[in-house]
Amino acid sequence: MPSTQKRRPPTRDLARTRAEILAAAFPLVLKHGFQGVSIDDVVARTRHTKGALFHQFPTKLDLGYALVDEVVRPLIKERWIAPLESYDNPLEGMLHQMETLIGGSTPETLKLGCPLNNLVQEMAPLDAGFRTRLQAALDLWVGETEKHLKRAQEKGYLKASIDTHAAAYFIVMAHEGFYGMLKGLGKRDAFAALFASFKSYFQAISNQEPVLPVEMTA
Amino acid sequence: MPSTQKRRPPTRDLARTRAEILAAAFPLVLKHGFQGVSIDDVVARTRHTKGALFHQFPTKLDLGYALVDEVVRPLIKERWIAPLESYDNPLEGMLHQMETLIGGSTPETLKLGCPLNNLVQEMAPLDAGFRTRLQAALDLWVGETEKHLKRAQEKGYLKASIDTHAAAYFIVMAHEGFYGMLKGLGKRDAFAALFASFKSYFQAISNQEPVLPVEMTA
Repeated sequence: MPSTQKRRPPTRDLARTRAEILAAAFPLVLKHGFQGVSIDDVVARTRHTKGALFHQFPTKLDLGYALVDEVVRPLIKERWIAPLESYDNPLEGMLHQMETLIGGSTPETLKLGCPLNNLVQEMAPLDAGFRTRLQAALDLWVGETEKHLKRAQEKGYLKASIDTHAAAYFIVMAHEGFYGMLKGLGKRDAFAALFASFKSYFQAISNQEPVLPVEMTA
Repeated sequence: MPSTQKRRPPTRDLARTRAEILAAAFPLVLKHGFQGVSIDDVVARTRHTKGALFHQFPTKLDLGYALVDEVVRPLIKERWIAPLESYDNPLEGMLHQMETLIGGSTPETLKLGCPLNNLVQEMAPLDAGFRTRLQAALDLWVGETEKHLKRAQEKGYLKASIDTHAAAYFIVMAHEGFYGMLKGLGKRDAFAALFASFKSYFQAISNQEPVLPVEMTA
């Protein structure tokens, strides 16, 4: 449609405004919780007006829902799923990610917890709209993890007897559980202890002996 | 001291008042979060005055700290630790507890989450006094779990190669992770999937083959 190419379509500006507002809201909500952040807090962190925000998000809940659908979901895919593509053995990739992305985090970062886990704990019991979206985000993570577990099984890395659906749930649970425990315990020796046991589990479901060749990089 | 036995010692009344206030506050905080409950909410659920409450708990934080030290810690011991004494094989006891106490919970109960996990997620990042007490409660759970793992190792149920400290952390993490995931996901097939994988982990650290003889009781 050549006639519209001469001017930047307004939809692009709107999309950028929307993305900027979400990018400003995300760290605030991560730190203070959804209920601990006001629309004014978010507006103060952007170059946009309150009117622009309300144009995008008529209510604070709309902003919260968009954080799940448009920030958390892509984060799950970019941070935890897409990198697995580059591993011939996805099990090795999963261990490596946990070691670097959680084990390698600073205590300050760990103290903030996992964005998804935080919202689940805070908002799932309080609001059905949040609950539906958070469930969908968890389902996405479990489902995409299972795809890589199936690949690992087809390639012979994962034991044929393992139920990939059950294993995918457990692996996602462990991510949320690690974040939850480390948020409460601080760093100390907790990550190393948790990770050693997580490797035992991976060893149990893996055809490879001995323990998968993952180096401590953090 | 016969002279004081004729009258009920005031300390006993104070202790009962304190216990009643904590018992009233606990379910409110479990449902609404610590920040979502006011002193007035708590007073309204007891037969005591606000003055009696402030006599026991000069600030709301004091009440919150007492919930951790005097309600959550005993709950951990009564619910998760003491029952293990009756199992010759503590690993079997741990699986059985998870199956009955988490797997057997109603969706309404699961929606509330775990009292300890909820407070860790909500208050550990916000208040150092909470954090210290919550850490101590987690440490208690990990430490007591490790004692039973050592017993399992001495009796030959747990593989000699397993680091009991790491395994204890992981088992407590899984409890918190299960509660966290089920809070977000509702019941559906999530517990069965998580539990199947948890059993795989237990199988991996156990000397017993095949899978431990735990029946679905829920």
